[in-house]
Amino acid sequence: MKLYTFFRSSASYRVRIALNLKGLPYEAIPIHLSKDGGTQNQPDFKALNPQGLVPVLDDEEGHTLTQSLAIMEYLEAKYPGVPLLPRDELERAQVRSIALAIACDIHPINNLRVLQYLGGPLALSETQRNDWYRHWTELGLVALEKSLQASGSAGKFCHGDTPTIADCCLVPQIFNARRFECDLSQTPTLVRINDTCLELEAFAAASPARQPDAA
Amino acid sequence: MKLYTFFRSSASYRVRIALNLKGLPYEAIPIHLSKDGGTQNQPDFKALNPQGLVPVLDDEEGHTLTQSLAIMEYLEAKYPGVPLLPRDELERAQVRSIALAIACDIHPINNLRVLQYLGGPLALSETQRNDWYRHWTELGLVALEKSLQASGSAGKFCHGDTPTIADCCLVPQIFNARRFECDLSQTPTLVRINDTCLELEAFAAASPARQPDAA
Repeated sequence: MKLYTFFRSSASYRVRIALNLKGLPYEAIPIHLSKDGGTQNQPDFKALNPQGLVPVLDDEEGHTLTQSLAIMEYLEAKYPGVPLLPRDELERAQVRSIALAIACDIHPINNLRVLQYLGGPLALSETQRNDWYRHWTELGLVALEKSLQASGSAGKFCHGDTPTIADCCLVPQIFNARRFECDLSQTPTLVRINDTCLELEAFAAASPARQPDAA
Repeated sequence: MKLYTFFRSSASYRVRIALNLKGLPYEAIPIHLSKDGGTQNQPDFKALNPQGLVPVLDDEEGHTLTQSLAIMEYLEAKYPGVPLLPRDELERAQVRSIALAIACDIHPINNLRVLQYLGGPLALSETQRNDWYRHWTELGLVALEKSLQASGSAGKFCHGDTPTIADCCLVPQIFNARRFECDLSQTPTLVRINDTCLELEAFAAASPARQPDAA
């Protein structure tokens, strides 16, 4: 399989973790995201994904898949050996809910292109952009912390004692939260789970610093 | 089942459509979203969902589920009679990818709370807020139009000739795009699919104007 990826892309990072957890080898094809002239806006890549976003998975049969959560669900169905979702449908919904709370309600509001729009057309200062980032990240993570505490379903990981797609989403989000110096004092459970994850080679090997396109 | 819903909430609208398509009766519990003193911030509701977001589904067994896509996946697994996902895993990934392109990359950036932050702490004008809305919506919908055209998988609906969760996400997004007077001239396939959907009572009955809490 080939994964079109950018070392610092949160959504790519999720899929890298999932592939590693499942023990699936892949060829990483770096797509350099940047404001001007980034590879993501070149016609070849836009033909693969008109959204111009990573990740894109090219599976062994030549199909291309987009959207990190759709890719992880596909991998889960096709390579169930190391499951990243529980079997029980209610528990599956809980895990998906955690993943979506990050993938829908935290990450897209703080994506690179959004921060660029805030700094470009809206001419906001770096302080305002950082406040924006921290506001949405802290709001989302605190709500998630409360959800996990209320559910009683968290174990070593977001759900029970084995990693799920929720953890695949959490770790990249905590990485970015730390990069933007968010206050994580209100989310001890999330930080504890993140640190547990990073002790596993599958998570550590997917981290931005260990990617071939890392600066 | 009980659905905590707000008539104009895009994410609630998706689940209302899915419930209707599957012929599942439910009791609608209105949660009035507003900047100050909205029901979504009251302790009773925050105890149900610390995110303070709708929809929340209370299933017949007393479980509460959050996140519209997780709820729809749960309904799909539990009530498969009227399927909203194809059987083939690759096709499922394609449908989920369309749903996520809307649910992750268009809607959250334009959610009520984001628009309130733009108008509040950032003191942006109504014109700037509307430009923001249209920018992200048009960017996302045009990319989706291109994806559908490239895939060749669209039929009467986003994927083939029966409705899927992709259509459950598309129709609320087009509703909002029209509300904010977005330019839809570049997305004829999406508009055509939206209009086809709205001819079905399951979609029409889920529309904001027909909800008990509509103004």
